[in-house]
Amino acid sequence: MVELIRSTSELKVRRATLNTQKVGLVPTMGNLHRGHASLVQASVNRNEVTIVTIFVNPKQFGPNEDFHRYPRTLEDDLELLDRVSNGRPCLVYAPETTQDIYPDGFDTTISLGELSRPLCGKFRPGHFDGVATVVYRLFSITRPHSAYFGAKDFQQLAIIRRMVLDLDIPVEIISMPIIRDHDGLALSSRNQYLDKDDRQLALKLPSTLTLSAQLFKECHHNTTDRKLTNFIKESLADSQVEWQYLDILDASTLRPPSAATQEWVIAGAMKVGKTRLIDNITVQKK
Amino acid sequence: MVELIRSTSELKVRRATLNTQKVGLVPTMGNLHRGHASLVQASVNRNEVTIVTIFVNPKQFGPNEDFHRYPRTLEDDLELLDRVSNGRPCLVYAPETTQDIYPDGFDTTISLGELSRPLCGKFRPGHFDGVATVVYRLFSITRPHSAYFGAKDFQQLAIIRRMVLDLDIPVEIISMPIIRDHDGLALSSRNQYLDKDDRQLALKLPSTLTLSAQLFKECHHNTTDRKLTNFIKESLADSQVEWQYLDILDASTLRPPSAATQEWVIAGAMKVGKTRLIDNITVQKK
Repeated sequence: MVELIRSTSELKVRRATLNTQKVGLVPTMGNLHRGHASLVQASVNRNEVTIVTIFVNPKQFGPNEDFHRYPRTLEDDLELLDRVSNGRPCLVYAPETTQDIYPDGFDTTISLGELSRPLCGKFRPGHFDGVATVVYRLFSITRPHSAYFGAKDFQQLAIIRRMVLDLDIPVEIISMPIIRDHDGLALSSRNQYLDKDDRQLALKLPSTLTLSAQLFKECHHNTTDRKLTNFIKESLADSQVEWQYLDILDASTLRPPSAATQEWVIAGAMKVGKTRLIDNITVQKK
Repeated sequence: MVELIRSTSELKVRRATLNTQKVGLVPTMGNLHRGHASLVQASVNRNEVTIVTIFVNPKQFGPNEDFHRYPRTLEDDLELLDRVSNGRPCLVYAPETTQDIYPDGFDTTISLGELSRPLCGKFRPGHFDGVATVVYRLFSITRPHSAYFGAKDFQQLAIIRRMVLDLDIPVEIISMPIIRDHDGLALSSRNQYLDKDDRQLALKLPSTLTLSAQLFKECHHNTTDRKLTNFIKESLADSQVEWQYLDILDASTLRPPSAATQEWVIAGAMKVGKTRLIDNITVQKK
């Protein structure tokens, strides 16, 4: 039972009618795939009402990034949501204008410090400010009890969790596993930018992460192990693709691992042609 | 009836006991004077409980500013509050540690864009990020219905009002008029840094603003009026004091006035020796 809402004022009126019903939020930029579907399914199973937001947030794109060509496919998205929500109440909030999210005169930015510096933060200045600010806005407009995010955007998740803690926001943050295609590539709206040859190259991202994780476990989580560091060095030197990073960090602080580390994230970003892809694997201490 | 609370956990427990009582907040950095007293009085008159916070916020001081020498006078402050609250419930929240406000790992900054660029923003980079972030934190810890701020910090007020709007914070922001000493100097904790000669020089701040306002009214709010611009030029050239700015701006946007301007702020900042002072006068359209 999908209900499309196109303005913030309308959404607020509708939200008020939900009273005490448990509300789950799935914030998206649209162009939904099975990754998003898994988030919606989780929310539908655990909440009385699910709100899916579809908003391509200009604040999280850099000046040379793909804001304008980012795929907008509202009709298809609604069809997918209709299937996935399976008769359960699902409000789709797809604001018609940017002003719905950022009214005229809007002047506030929420930024994270330490957590937004490593990994993607190095290559996408301002990106996580845009993410934190829009997620705050979506939370304050939709007032959910819980919100669902995919683990593919690992740094985004860490940032949102920290923001929620720091700003005392009463929303439970739930992370769902990465969904992969048959060939191992993590699902992403950006995968459709890839032609057949690009896709073949892109597979180096998940395969390198998988092999790194295997070596990392074999050497008992020693980030200075020669076999591991050589493998990473050789991978990064591969000239067929353009790696931005391939890092092993403490999964909760996103800093270099220490003796206190309980979980590691092995995270990578690469460009294949003009398409930028990210992926990660986490490894737990036994 | 003043009750001193020294930790956030204790404050939160106490806040929960207030139930539906109307709570007013007066955020301060301590070293209270009659300016603060007027805020507390306003809150006491309009609320069932007043919370006064006393916290010298490191995030709003620049590396070369007076964080360390900023006067800390808790005993005197409590005495003043006891007098001013006049038997009405007044919780004084003076956290013992910085971690009470910013727990370990705290990583979030709230910043305003356009509103934090002019005036003091030019001379105190990062200052208003610190102000917005601490005010958000104090709001989320104390959960007041209304909060009282002095009009002397005009830009701070504009920034807090905008943040509250942008982030949907359910707190009413109330501005109280500047309180001045017998000689016209706006009350400030920093006035005590001034010796007798400095104080005489400091009076040029309110007197220049007053004369500017008079000329501005006489020329019917024409910021390009020759008499007015000459007066401002000559004032700024005075080598006995160090003006940082003396600007006439639209009071709501803090941008250069336009045909739509309904209220102007004439704002100045000057340094007398090492002491930095600010003041302002607003002028309404008739």
